[in-house]
Amino acid sequence: MPRFALKIDYDGGPFQGWQRQAAHQPSVQATVEAALGRLQPGPHTIAAAGRTDAGVHGTGQVATVDLVRDWEPYRLSEALNWHLKPAPVAVIAAARVADDFHARFSATERRYLFRLVARRAPVTHDRGRVWQVLNPLDTGAMRAGAAHLLGHHDFTTFRSSLCQANSPMKTLDEVSITEHAYPGGVEYRFVLRARSFLHNQVRSIVGTLERVGTGGWAPDAVKAALEARDRAACGPVCPPQGLYLTGVGYAVDPFAGT
Amino acid sequence: MPRFALKIDYDGGPFQGWQRQAAHQPSVQATVEAALGRLQPGPHTIAAAGRTDAGVHGTGQVATVDLVRDWEPYRLSEALNWHLKPAPVAVIAAARVADDFHARFSATERRYLFRLVARRAPVTHDRGRVWQVLNPLDTGAMRAGAAHLLGHHDFTTFRSSLCQANSPMKTLDEVSITEHAYPGGVEYRFVLRARSFLHNQVRSIVGTLERVGTGGWAPDAVKAALEARDRAACGPVCPPQGLYLTGVGYAVDPFAGT
Repeated sequence: MPRFALKIDYDGGPFQGWQRQAAHQPSVQATVEAALGRLQPGPHTIAAAGRTDAGVHGTGQVATVDLVRDWEPYRLSEALNWHLKPAPVAVIAAARVADDFHARFSATERRYLFRLVARRAPVTHDRGRVWQVLNPLDTGAMRAGAAHLLGHHDFTTFRSSLCQANSPMKTLDEVSITEHAYPGGVEYRFVLRARSFLHNQVRSIVGTLERVGTGGWAPDAVKAALEARDRAACGPVCPPQGLYLTGVGYAVDPFAGT
Repeated sequence: MPRFALKIDYDGGPFQGWQRQAAHQPSVQATVEAALGRLQPGPHTIAAAGRTDAGVHGTGQVATVDLVRDWEPYRLSEALNWHLKPAPVAVIAAARVADDFHARFSATERRYLFRLVARRAPVTHDRGRVWQVLNPLDTGAMRAGAAHLLGHHDFTTFRSSLCQANSPMKTLDEVSITEHAYPGGVEYRFVLRARSFLHNQVRSIVGTLERVGTGGWAPDAVKAALEARDRAACGPVCPPQGLYLTGVGYAVDPFAGT
């Protein structure tokens, strides 16, 4: 059966996460699989590059699916978007891929964005789309703390106790922090990039760096926490609604030219 | 009575516009006045710099109000935000101003942003926050069309038949268009700046420039439409949900230092 890769954009707010759950628990995966079921009798099981948690958003999730019909990829995306309405899930690109291409196992990079807004007044436009704190943060200190995490490390400290990965060893290729104008406050955008991440790794890192930004932790305390290799040494895990899976890298981009 | 200026941020989606309406019609003005009524017996009538239409957003609206008590401005904003919850309206700055300062009549500039997204797939995160079209636009052509509108003109063509201004003569100080990355598409941001605008002027201009961006209108057709001084010569007025009142200018910024 021909295999297709789908690039998927979704608002994670209404969902219990990417992964299909027990009945009556909304998930992004089940939503896309139901739309596929309108095109071809199911059941369908799609594989995704990143299994985002409840409330986490996607702007560049990638999933693969096998279908009976050799769809023209653009028509496939249009048909799926028709059946996805009114869910806040959309297929923003589709491509025919080789039978050995797998959204998860072929991926060579995952990219995440975390949006953190510091302002006193409650956020209005961005409810459910950012993590809000009340006071401005020290960006220089957060950058100094983040620098300790770059590279190849045992990330046990920054790993959920539920994490199913075989090894806590990961290589963090980027953790950058930029400031952006925001009405009545300031927005901090964290960009993290790695071949793969442990469960809750991004939220554990951002929650810890926020502690550094408030002055509660010294930047060097991040190094000590990493070296402790102990979940109890982690700062608080930050909430999910500021997190976005923005992109997935492959040796050859399946969507090039779409 | 001491007079205060409030800088107000709101999601226009749930409201019939800024201006107080008949009973049971939600408005941003009535929402803020109700919160003021929790601090001091009303009725209160606040004056705003821009009376935004139904569905139009604010990130930097300014309003003035007279209160009996000489509030510390920061405490006033905190108390109002407490009483504004859960409405998507927030006071992001407050300042004590002179008795002759008026949010509307003292204003020397209004700044608007219009967000237009071109992509095939339905928008997810930005529903009610952008105007979506399906196909990419020609930014160069839109800029060439916009250039005809800069400066002092009779804007009768770009004015709602409901407009109550005495004169159609206005000076447009800026109309700039920039492209931004957007998942599965492209975002065009229009920034317009003038001492004041006619009713529906921004949406009439953006709707007309979008016609130029599709190639349906030549850039010079904008000049002909302007010179026609005829509402019927205008392009389609674009929908409200992409429009944001981002700021109001005064000879002296009342919020400097807040």
